[in-house]
Amino acid sequence: MKDVASRAGVGLKTVSRVVNGEPGVTAGTRRRVQEAIDALGFRRNDSARVLRKGRTATVGLILEDLADPFYGPLSRAVEEVARAHDTLLINGSSAHDANRERELALALCARRVDGLLVVPAGTDHRYLEPEMRAGIATVFVDRPARAVEADTVLSDNHGGARAGVAHLIAHGHRRIGYIGDVPGIHTSDERLRGYRTAMEEAGLPVRPDRVSVGSTAPQRVRRAAEEMLDGPDPVTALLTGNNRVTVTVVRVLAERQPHRPVALVGFDDFELADLLRPAVTVVAQDPAGLGRVAAQRLFARMAQAELEPSVVELPTRLVVRGSGELPPVD
Amino acid sequence: MKDVASRAGVGLKTVSRVVNGEPGVTAGTRRRVQEAIDALGFRRNDSARVLRKGRTATVGLILEDLADPFYGPLSRAVEEVARAHDTLLINGSSAHDANRERELALALCARRVDGLLVVPAGTDHRYLEPEMRAGIATVFVDRPARAVEADTVLSDNHGGARAGVAHLIAHGHRRIGYIGDVPGIHTSDERLRGYRTAMEEAGLPVRPDRVSVGSTAPQRVRRAAEEMLDGPDPVTALLTGNNRVTVTVVRVLAERQPHRPVALVGFDDFELADLLRPAVTVVAQDPAGLGRVAAQRLFARMAQAELEPSVVELPTRLVVRGSGELPPVD
Repeated sequence: MKDVASRAGVGLKTVSRVVNGEPGVTAGTRRRVQEAIDALGFRRNDSARVLRKGRTATVGLILEDLADPFYGPLSRAVEEVARAHDTLLINGSSAHDANRERELALALCARRVDGLLVVPAGTDHRYLEPEMRAGIATVFVDRPARAVEADTVLSDNHGGARAGVAHLIAHGHRRIGYIGDVPGIHTSDERLRGYRTAMEEAGLPVRPDRVSVGSTAPQRVRRAAEEMLDGPDPVTALLTGNNRVTVTVVRVLAERQPHRPVALVGFDDFELADLLRPAVTVVAQDPAGLGRVAAQRLFARMAQAELEPSVVELPTRLVVRGSGELPPVD
Repeated sequence: MKDVASRAGVGLKTVSRVVNGEPGVTAGTRRRVQEAIDALGFRRNDSARVLRKGRTATVGLILEDLADPFYGPLSRAVEEVARAHDTLLINGSSAHDANRERELALALCARRVDGLLVVPAGTDHRYLEPEMRAGIATVFVDRPARAVEADTVLSDNHGGARAGVAHLIAHGHRRIGYIGDVPGIHTSDERLRGYRTAMEEAGLPVRPDRVSVGSTAPQRVRRAAEEMLDGPDPVTALLTGNNRVTVTVVRVLAERQPHRPVALVGFDDFELADLLRPAVTVVAQDPAGLGRVAAQRLFARMAQAELEPSVVELPTRLVVRGSGELPPVD
């Protein structure tokens, strides 16, 4: 900085103004300073920009899919907490890929985030141990860390799915199908477990042809729904494992109207669910709550590194709107 | 690194394995290396992590609102292009705040992104000139840069809104209201201009009580809609300025059923618009296209800094579904 200032024949403050693109510097001075910076070869080694380093506290959030609306309120809640702490939030997406998650997490650490929130796609988070040991606060949200002990904030996936299926059973359904996300994902496995629990508690069989888990791609979900709806012994009700699955199943059912009505409970609330006909009954998570609680935990850990890792589970809420209260029709 | 290796009595590769959390290192060795790193005080100055610096190319994307579904496909398209270039994407949100945008953009530059995509909230982007001059490729998307010359990728907001209103006029409407986003935002101003153009081309008056621009917060939009619907000389049709406005107006209209039907054309497509009754006619943008074209331009500029700044405008598409074809009812 001194070199730049003396070479440009201006004060340090002026150099800083130029580097930070602040007003109050004439075009001529701005050019002289920039020339000095270029001449001194600071472009490559970022020294000019190092001025700014550490000025802004930053936390990172790694999501799994930028286009899944579930993450919208979660991200925004994290951002609001970060903002309240005068901290910037930067996000990245693993795009459902464990290697991508690791690459991104390490890249954010290398870029000196002060804390990291991770919605994990991966199944082994030991790669983060050196970072955590080096003082980067880390909190896992929506899904637990694997193979490391860390703060975690989850939804009650098992309890929510169980309540959703119990609701269908209470409305007289016996032939209930489950269409969910890829097995191995914590939320997916827990919701399937909730379906099984509710069926077993009612003494109902869990038939393999009434459980379909896999990609949430519309084609895959559509095929699964049609098999359960058109089989020899068709389902009268469905529990869908997340909002991506629900939206496709709603579409499949709508196309079949005025066919036999089929009851539906979706896991995750989604925009306009209340305006569809029938309005869609859902097991609502609290994505904003997940983000808020996880971010608050992150800042608590940033302030107090020695906190014991904790696991918080947020309740879900059954929102009754119509589709989940349709009676069984054979 | 050498110091760490010799102090821990291991090879450089082992140190790198530990720092990067890679497998194939015994717990004991891992601990010895970590102790050496700690002892040599590398925790603070990130030297250990500098190993990783520059290994992963990274571009930044600054959005305006993490919870607006419009940005989902846009972000994902940018990410796919980045991924095809073996580059990581990190996102941030300005939360509609110009200072926040500036803070975030400079923080990303300070963290050595190789390129920057900006959906600007601000109205003066001179603060980015030093960064752009220092070689950080920058492309503006959805809205133009202000006060700087830069690559820009936009939707045809004026043409799209004009076509939407012309469509309502073609279906016999004369009393057409417009409810849009905050004035001063490029997209908002352009869409309002499109409304005015279509009205004037049809020789229809643009009445102040039939134009309402401001926050897209549901309460504000609801009030605006109700004033236009319940006034002495109520509108028979509405053009809504973006998906946030449309969703609230759809809700207002649904609550009023079986009242007088009101025609609606929404700017922006949105999930499930086709399953609502009536299904919602929209002027669809191509958010994935905006992201893809902008990201491709960014990588072209990263490869060829001397490219002349260009402005690309993507067409919109009228998607006819029912709500926009309702006849006028007094």
